[in-house]
Amino acid sequence: MKISATAEDTFLQQVFAKYNFSKEDGALLADTLVDADLRGISSHGIQRLAWYLNMIKEHIIEPTNKPIILKESATSLLIDANQNMGHIASALAMRKLIEKTKKSSVSIAVIRNSNHFGTAGYYSRMAAEAGLIGVSNTNTRPLVVPTNAKDAFLGSNAFAFTFPAEPHPFVFDGATSVVSGGKIQVLAKQGGKIPGEWAIDRDRNIVKDANAAEDILSKVALTEEQPGGGVLTLGGNEEENSNYKGFGNSLVVELLTGILAQGSISADTNTGKHDFSQFFLTIDPSFFGDIEVLKANVESMFERIRNLDKLPGTQIMIPGDREYKRYDENKAHGVSIDETTAGQLKDIATELNVTAPTAL
Amino acid sequence: MKISATAEDTFLQQVFAKYNFSKEDGALLADTLVDADLRGISSHGIQRLAWYLNMIKEHIIEPTNKPIILKESATSLLIDANQNMGHIASALAMRKLIEKTKKSSVSIAVIRNSNHFGTAGYYSRMAAEAGLIGVSNTNTRPLVVPTNAKDAFLGSNAFAFTFPAEPHPFVFDGATSVVSGGKIQVLAKQGGKIPGEWAIDRDRNIVKDANAAEDILSKVALTEEQPGGGVLTLGGNEEENSNYKGFGNSLVVELLTGILAQGSISADTNTGKHDFSQFFLTIDPSFFGDIEVLKANVESMFERIRNLDKLPGTQIMIPGDREYKRYDENKAHGVSIDETTAGQLKDIATELNVTAPTAL
Repeated sequence: MKISATAEDTFLQQVFAKYNFSKEDGALLADTLVDADLRGISSHGIQRLAWYLNMIKEHIIEPTNKPIILKESATSLLIDANQNMGHIASALAMRKLIEKTKKSSVSIAVIRNSNHFGTAGYYSRMAAEAGLIGVSNTNTRPLVVPTNAKDAFLGSNAFAFTFPAEPHPFVFDGATSVVSGGKIQVLAKQGGKIPGEWAIDRDRNIVKDANAAEDILSKVALTEEQPGGGVLTLGGNEEENSNYKGFGNSLVVELLTGILAQGSISADTNTGKHDFSQFFLTIDPSFFGDIEVLKANVESMFERIRNLDKLPGTQIMIPGDREYKRYDENKAHGVSIDETTAGQLKDIATELNVTAPTAL
Repeated sequence: MKISATAEDTFLQQVFAKYNFSKEDGALLADTLVDADLRGISSHGIQRLAWYLNMIKEHIIEPTNKPIILKESATSLLIDANQNMGHIASALAMRKLIEKTKKSSVSIAVIRNSNHFGTAGYYSRMAAEAGLIGVSNTNTRPLVVPTNAKDAFLGSNAFAFTFPAEPHPFVFDGATSVVSGGKIQVLAKQGGKIPGEWAIDRDRNIVKDANAAEDILSKVALTEEQPGGGVLTLGGNEEENSNYKGFGNSLVVELLTGILAQGSISADTNTGKHDFSQFFLTIDPSFFGDIEVLKANVESMFERIRNLDKLPGTQIMIPGDREYKRYDENKAHGVSIDETTAGQLKDIATELNVTAPTAL
């Protein structure tokens, strides 16, 4: 079904208020979920709500805890998310980095003791809207099998990078692995086949059935049981196609998050109380040149790429193109909610005595 | 044949002196080439010498020019390489960033009007040896075909990332594309088949013959002739395997180099006078925690990864493992030089009246 973004936002703010998030935090959380749904990243939208609420009930997320700034300099920031949602500490970090970078051209933040933070792109886009380059990373549950290995160890470890441009910023945002776990989860809900080479069993055979893959992922990511297998690194199943580069990209994120934060590495977040860590970087491009000139050069490069000769029936899209197009469409016509999620929202609404969003 | 690293270094310093590089610059250039050969990255070793010397003769490289610092703050640096070798401005940038980051925890540099800078890892390792995280990027000649496109547009755009660790730092260093052009060039010299899916023709058919691939690459990278095709993005030929992520990674480097530097983008470096741009970032991990604790955590993570269950007959290697192993072997037993390169070195020696290194 389709619901309006406004209705989704109102509903979410009511739900978060019932769970004792501050008004400001609830508004932020709602905005991040609506934003993901508007951009068509439904894996990170309202379909996560039931999962977040379960983590609150299990005291993995503590809604009234405030982030603590542990260390701060003109260019650097270490924050303890204090076991609240990762979104809250992350938005705080990015707001502070934007201020810092306006003065010092570059700044970095590390967050420890955090939870899931939604889409990485949300925070990097805050930087882009302020005219800055933004980088966001998080580690995750263990899902990804290193080159030649049989067992998942790495997180899907998100990487987002934004650069100011018109009509919309460059927004590269996603798992460093071939796909995120959420993408397989969404396919499994539909009972579908996996179109590409995304998941493997413990002998590194490709798993094409989305439910079989989801079964592997839910075990390796969320239980002590380690049946082997998981998501492939970017580059696929074969070392000869440089899948160790995808492995390296994932390790880079692991080093910048779990290691710098002295939190858990992805491999140690599969059971019980777990913590994620985040890393942020902002750069002021105007140190290097007039921002309007830089943006014009970026736009001209992107236009040349979009207009390259292409295979019939395909499009060449710059990272961000698809999401901004969907954003406009979904803003006008509503965001799509799958049936399972719609059912969960009804149950949540009944439990909390709020009104579930109605179909458009 | 095999030659000793010391003989290679002596020879190279003599050659660079004949071309009027300063003693200091010549020593640096020699060290970067010997270092690449010692690490088994022969695509970036002495086999590049004839190519560099040709660029000097064509005045693409100006050996007596000094890099110019255009803008400098406590955290940021913009350098004009002044059309000399990229190595010289890059080593200067990294030395300055190490100083800056020791004070400010993070700093960045952009270099414009530069040439090839050797391996990206060389500069990032300078940071690692100083206890810092180091990132190095460069754009390159156009070689890489965006997702769905038929024509090369992006560079192979190198990305190196280092993190301090024992017994050796984490060193992730390579092209953001599935392979570098150099890797295909080396195979073509041997007349071999390409083992993986690395190169495509203009209809995006996989090209397996290394000489056919090298023929495409030499045209798209170095001439006005654009027959279409080139190197694949990391992720391979199929959009369903997320090859747009490799495309995104390459674009990130393009934005940080050609765009921030206001130099040429890779697509515009195929003919005539061309310029490359570089980007560097260093971070002091000790802002976030005791460096010995961080290093111990890194080493423990790497050991766990190396010891995961693996496919029979394979190894799980952390980025850097292979290169440091080769470094020790080649330091003891000499570096390998292919026959074509050995012939070129003889000709260079005769022309310049210096002594070519002799086979061990």
